[in-house]
Amino acid sequence: MKPRIAVTLGDPAGVGPEIVARLCAHAPTLELAELIVVGQRRLLEAGARSCGLPAPAVEVVEVGQLLKITPGLPSPASGKLAGGFVEKALELVQAGEAAAMATAPISKEALQAAGYSDTGHTTLLARRTGTERPVMMLAGERLKVVLVTIHKAMRDVPGLLSVEGIVHTAQVTHDSLERYWGIAAPRLAVCGLNPHAGEHGLFGDEEERIIAPAVEELRAAGVDAVGPLPPDTVFWRATRGHFDTVVCMYHDQGLIPLKLLHFEDGVNVSLGLPIIRTSVDHGTAYDLAGTGQANPASMIAAVRMAAQMAMAGD
Amino acid sequence: MKPRIAVTLGDPAGVGPEIVARLCAHAPTLELAELIVVGQRRLLEAGARSCGLPAPAVEVVEVGQLLKITPGLPSPASGKLAGGFVEKALELVQAGEAAAMATAPISKEALQAAGYSDTGHTTLLARRTGTERPVMMLAGERLKVVLVTIHKAMRDVPGLLSVEGIVHTAQVTHDSLERYWGIAAPRLAVCGLNPHAGEHGLFGDEEERIIAPAVEELRAAGVDAVGPLPPDTVFWRATRGHFDTVVCMYHDQGLIPLKLLHFEDGVNVSLGLPIIRTSVDHGTAYDLAGTGQANPASMIAAVRMAAQMAMAGD
Repeated sequence: MKPRIAVTLGDPAGVGPEIVARLCAHAPTLELAELIVVGQRRLLEAGARSCGLPAPAVEVVEVGQLLKITPGLPSPASGKLAGGFVEKALELVQAGEAAAMATAPISKEALQAAGYSDTGHTTLLARRTGTERPVMMLAGERLKVVLVTIHKAMRDVPGLLSVEGIVHTAQVTHDSLERYWGIAAPRLAVCGLNPHAGEHGLFGDEEERIIAPAVEELRAAGVDAVGPLPPDTVFWRATRGHFDTVVCMYHDQGLIPLKLLHFEDGVNVSLGLPIIRTSVDHGTAYDLAGTGQANPASMIAAVRMAAQMAMAGD
Repeated sequence: MKPRIAVTLGDPAGVGPEIVARLCAHAPTLELAELIVVGQRRLLEAGARSCGLPAPAVEVVEVGQLLKITPGLPSPASGKLAGGFVEKALELVQAGEAAAMATAPISKEALQAAGYSDTGHTTLLARRTGTERPVMMLAGERLKVVLVTIHKAMRDVPGLLSVEGIVHTAQVTHDSLERYWGIAAPRLAVCGLNPHAGEHGLFGDEEERIIAPAVEELRAAGVDAVGPLPPDTVFWRATRGHFDTVVCMYHDQGLIPLKLLHFEDGVNVSLGLPIIRTSVDHGTAYDLAGTGQANPASMIAAVRMAAQMAMAGD
């Protein structure tokens, strides 16, 4: 049986309704997953019209009032609908009516203008599920990375690294790869922070003080982690099958290689939540909204990954 | 006429003699360049034998005494020869007997054991040519990057960035692209330091304080530089032809994408010297020396790039 995937429309003033409309017309994905669009049929149909597509023949769970939305113009109304779609999708998964959720892009500003305290999907879902520290994975067919620190100034990154934080990130990743990707003994590469992983303390000591002890602790706990590895070669090795996921110390360490290989079809996966949730790895692209030009590759990849995770995690 | 390229054998205890022997057997490169091997014929022939190749029919400029060298075992003797090969190649280029030099890998430790004060090729060549601050470019067919800081701890990088350092790196790069790649108006992308290039000061202020003023100064000087750009998307854009070179703030910012695309055939180019010098972008690989297994792709690419630069720079 195909897994049922709850797909949110995202901020309705962004490209979400259009990329979801294109998703609903993507036959290979419909063979893999049964879609439940969480939003409003009129918004989905408007998105389809912008793309020159017929009205999608898909189940829609209606959420929220019929507020006036103009493509390209975010507002408290668009933020309110966007937040409501996410909350409803979560409820469907928690109630067992969907196996996983995949989300279209929302805007932090519009969400907060509508009264939410959250900075985005992940914080909203973490709050609603009581998850303390979800782990962000960016994934494509050729490479998967997870981030120990995310939106931090580079000058603050060295001071933010800790044995505990690295172990947490890697352990959550390990457990998720086992459960949702069906990998029996996931192989994790742990990056160094510094060039050449510090070259034995020559350029920085975080490898010796923090990262190596974290790898030791992980190995003692039965996790097949290796490192700290030189960051400039580890990603190539991962694409050749040496590792299942690369644990990265900072945002660009993981995002530079991921976006180089998967600029259009990268998927953002929240690990550590009690549910399966994937997302596009791009924003609302208000400048494209209503033009029918937005690329649906990341949305399609997000749904396919959610479906595969749901199948493996059964 | 084909440009004459002086090719050093590198540290003779490393893989240099083998990759140069393979280079000498690479017909497409022999069509592009006339090789002058700088080293010793007996070492080159030993390298060829390790690779199962006949003795190369190539001009060899003999340098140094016939010291005993064992593949895989660096020594003061191997370092002394390695340094001598580099100095002789430089002389040949300075005397106009070669148009450019391409170097096989040497070892800092062996070089210094032989009495050199230099940490590698670049410092040796800078010292011998009176060049104050050469710029390191790593280059492949799909991507070229230059580095503002190189072998530095990440925690020190923010404090090492300066308007002047960025402008120097970009200006030398601009001039080299014009002169040696024949690009009329080189387009340079200048990376931010922080995720999303700081997102308007939200994660770090180096973009506003240092990088943006450097870009302004460059543009005022007629350099087509844009930035600071978000580091996680700029390399993909560069591979699509948006930029000729990406100016990177730190080692792994440039090396991660470069090695992901050009793990085997990346080339290290020293810009700002009064001569053309390219190099392999890997080390001596002592563990492979004598096995005939070393991959010559980077050596071949280095010679081809030197030849192309010599043709354009004529």
